[in-house]
Amino acid sequence: MLTDEIELIDQHCHGIVAADLNRPEFEALLGEGRRGSFESALGLAVRRWCAPVLGLPAHAPAEEYLARRGELGWREVSARLLRAAEVSRWLVDTGFGFDPAFAELCGGEVAEIVRIESVAERVIAEYGLTAAVFDEIERALRDSARGAAGLKTIAAYRCGLDFPAHGVPPAASAVSGSRLTDPRVLSWLVGLAARISAETGLPLQFHTGFGDTDLRLRRADPLLLTDFLRATEDTGATVVLLHCWPFHRNAAYLANVFGHVHLDLGLTIPHVGHRASAVLAEALELAPFARLGYSSDGCGLAELHYLGARLWRRGLGQVLDEWIADDAITVADAEQLVAAVGAGNAARLYPGATPRFGHRPDSSDRPLR
Amino acid sequence: MLTDEIELIDQHCHGIVAADLNRPEFEALLGEGRRGSFESALGLAVRRWCAPVLGLPAHAPAEEYLARRGELGWREVSARLLRAAEVSRWLVDTGFGFDPAFAELCGGEVAEIVRIESVAERVIAEYGLTAAVFDEIERALRDSARGAAGLKTIAAYRCGLDFPAHGVPPAASAVSGSRLTDPRVLSWLVGLAARISAETGLPLQFHTGFGDTDLRLRRADPLLLTDFLRATEDTGATVVLLHCWPFHRNAAYLANVFGHVHLDLGLTIPHVGHRASAVLAEALELAPFARLGYSSDGCGLAELHYLGARLWRRGLGQVLDEWIADDAITVADAEQLVAAVGAGNAARLYPGATPRFGHRPDSSDRPLR
Amino acid sequence: MLTDEIELIDQHCHGIVAADLNRPEFEALLGEGRRGSFESALGLAVRRWCAPVLGLPAHAPAEEYLARRGELGWREVSARLLRAAEVSRWLVDTGFGFDPAFAELCGGEVAEIVRIESVAERVIAEYGLTAAVFDEIERALRDSARGAAGLKTIAAYRCGLDFPAHGVPPAASAVSGSRLTDPRVLSWLVGLAARISAETGLPLQFHTGFGDTDLRLRRADPLLLTDFLRATEDTGATVVLLHCWPFHRNAAYLANVFGHVHLDLGLTIPHVGHRASAVLAEALELAPFARLGYSSDGCGLAELHYLGARLWRRGLGQVLDEWIADDAITVADAEQLVAAVGAGNAARLYPGATPRFGHRPDSSDRPLR
Repeated sequence: MLTDEIELIDQHCHGIVAADLNRPEFEALLGEGRRGSFESALGLAVRRWCAPVLGLPAHAPAEEYLARRGELGWREVSARLLRAAEVSRWLVDTGFGFDPAFAELCGGEVAEIVRIESVAERVIAEYGLTAAVFDEIERALRDSARGAAGLKTIAAYRCGLDFPAHGVPPAASAVSGSRLTDPRVLSWLVGLAARISAETGLPLQFHTGFGDTDLRLRRADPLLLTDFLRATEDTGATVVLLHCWPFHRNAAYLANVFGHVHLDLGLTIPHVGHRASAVLAEALELAPFARLGYSSDGCGLAELHYLGARLWRRGLGQVLDEWIADDAITVADAEQLVAAVGAGNAARLYPGATPRFGHRPDSSDRPLR
Repeated sequence: MLTDEIELIDQHCHGIVAADLNRPEFEALLGEGRRGSFESALGLAVRRWCAPVLGLPAHAPAEEYLARRGELGWREVSARLLRAAEVSRWLVDTGFGFDPAFAELCGGEVAEIVRIESVAERVIAEYGLTAAVFDEIERALRDSARGAAGLKTIAAYRCGLDFPAHGVPPAASAVSGSRLTDPRVLSWLVGLAARISAETGLPLQFHTGFGDTDLRLRRADPLLLTDFLRATEDTGATVVLLHCWPFHRNAAYLANVFGHVHLDLGLTIPHVGHRASAVLAEALELAPFARLGYSSDGCGLAELHYLGARLWRRGLGQVLDEWIADDAITVADAEQLVAAVGAGNAARLYPGATPRFGHRPDSSDRPLR
Repeated sequence: MLTDEIELIDQHCHGIVAADLNRPEFEALLGEGRRGSFESALGLAVRRWCAPVLGLPAHAPAEEYLARRGELGWREVSARLLRAAEVSRWLVDTGFGFDPAFAELCGGEVAEIVRIESVAERVIAEYGLTAAVFDEIERALRDSARGAAGLKTIAAYRCGLDFPAHGVPPAASAVSGSRLTDPRVLSWLVGLAARISAETGLPLQFHTGFGDTDLRLRRADPLLLTDFLRATEDTGATVVLLHCWPFHRNAAYLANVFGHVHLDLGLTIPHVGHRASAVLAEALELAPFARLGYSSDGCGLAELHYLGARLWRRGLGQVLDEWIADDAITVADAEQLVAAVGAGNAARLYPGATPRFGHRPDSSDRPLR
């Protein structure tokens, strides 16, 4: 298959749980709602693709898979799966903790994506709600951005992507508690991140589309960002829409009409399993080939990091094999396309970033994406 | 095909019109907008699949089909089609009338789904708008629930699924007329039904997605239930999202993240005809296999009950044949999957229910779903 | 293929740029966001299908394609592409200008679609905001409608399809500036157009779904027209939903339940390139075959007019070949279906219209669709 050998840059993932897991713990991490199950497209994909990496036959039953996982231990399992992903560069959102074991095991370069809400909440926890807190947040965010590969916002979780248009920091009194949910504060924070993106060239990633139960999915439709995108279009800022399902066609449209918008399918790919090619084909209807990228959004289980890569390579390969067979594209153009979406686009987007994992993740933050 | 022989439980359908029909009458029942036509995916499916059941060649022209239908008479036609569906158990929403002929003809067990709006409207018609009417509605609903297989709400039709969160009965004065459309009353009624579901184990079915012209489809998106689902998640209540198209991916997401949410594709399957496998494949992206079920939503014409079953078996079989061919699932796992979604999941969900068709359907209610 | 020879009526397109273009100018016109690119599904389709029409090998590189285009000159290129579309009748929205060269080059009959916002703005520019302006608009619109093939509204661009329900003209003071964006005025204007449609039989076309960056795509969902459709259902008015993607399933549903609603996929088809058959298959789930039509929405580049026709024929042919192979439809029925959606439905919908291109397009209007 055309995509078997392509380089991949995983532009958005999380760390792994550095511990052995029993079945309930494993299945909880398999699902976005913390209620995952082997009886799902994702569960089938784990048994089909991950089992052989652990030395089992493809489709090994769940119990055998977990027994083998326990036998090998989390460290060996994670090392095997992360290396099997054959990802050359991992951009890791450290927003809810990060075990340095990942960097040791993953067999690639690791750089950091800074979650802007975590930075802001850390500053608020330290400084309290003084009038100066917004200046301190800006200072901390600019500081965090140095050496990072990109910024990321989870405004979709906190207030929805229909946050109001703002340019100035709200009165400090608007902030209550250490968990940011106020749409005005989040709007200010996202606006600040967009300015930093414009100044530094660091892309600003948005969680969009499906995620766990903390989300109201309707408010995670990337179309809600239309006014924000219009406002930032000519500023030099760069926006990356992550995940996107079931709004991936909407995201592709936004990338089609706004020159500073990129997208990927993130956790969609491992979750939909065998349907990866179908979802990718929908995204490719309108997405400019130069602004589609790859990420796994792998989180907790190295299975997700691996399946993201495995199913992306396979799904994209299936789409392009069909296009080639139908004479819709030449082999040479298809090779260029897969090289671009696998790594070329991301290499241009996230040029240089220094790993800096001395940073203390805010472990009080809930494990959201 | 893998699914040719599987048992089916039809978890949501309606009765049939116990009368012979001319072409306009037949076509009206073929469409959700009472403007159906043979010139549609559904019409093609009737000619392809139902004609042979009536002893005609596949694809017999519409006129021949209707002539043959008239020749055999509605009773013989319905008996043939309902039996050809090979459904072992039919759960019938009796909310807008039910002819006992269905039970005689269908060749399976029949149990009742209680439409909560019909019960409430019957009580209001009897008691008027006294202060005590909400207590009477609760009494009547609990009474109706005894022996029923489940409850069902058509709040999507009456006020949309974005009804407000409520716990207490609104002032009786809020009720005007005998047709419930007030969002506050409907919210209270749905909340009551959720409590009864939690106490009795009876699932609460929601009409979601497409239906007839009385509907505002945007307000039938199951995502609008997110807050309701979050509130009921740990109460013991069970929710079934019916139909869902074109929001079936949204419904699958909800079932993925909320452990008490089930879904089916209902009337989607007969209506989309040959596209049944494509729509099923989309639903299977995120739907947990243990919480996907089957229903036809057949209403008026036994053709719909039959096509639901025929196209579901065929569509699901096509999806799984492809998965097997691509080595995405083993034959044994595929067999388990189709057994579960065809009947196993429903058998667990609707364990014991006594048919009780002495109940007087509210014939003044319009024939909505 | 079944569709190779079918007649096509293009029920909605625009003129072409009567000038030679450099690469940035060409690519700008290739994209809805004025940021088109050869690196897209549409770009691949241009190279695959248009290159041979210009005498190049299929898949010729972009630079060669543009060089050849320059060599032949815009007039020869446009003539070749428009004629290769083999469209018997072009209905042209003249709302933002129209070069008479199109009619000379296209090899078919040309009739006019009147953009109602352009007419209204011309009147306002002439008469100012006097109390009589609404009467003048009505007079001008009725005048423009004579000899036209249909009416068209771009309310989706101006205020969104969730405009309020209105029957009476708003106070003239509500109109400010010459560009109509006031939802009340647009609602009145659309209502007027619906009355003219009912009286004259001229269909009223709505831009729905994707378009350029001036659009808020969420407000272009045709489901937002539900109340308007309910209100006009029995008036004799006829409504055509243009383009529709990514809401094409919603549009198909509306056509299914409302007898006066038609749809096409418009610019979707050239833009999604090889995916045309997949999108068409989704639309055919619920769209009545008698109310689906064809248009290219071609604008600026004759490539778009040609690709609309080429990819529609091919995509529809692929869908029906698959249906025939699976015995879901007979060859005879498939032939009827493609004849209807290619031209038969449109021939009934737009019976007689006199070309009248002496009309001065309002060249001050921005090039919106």
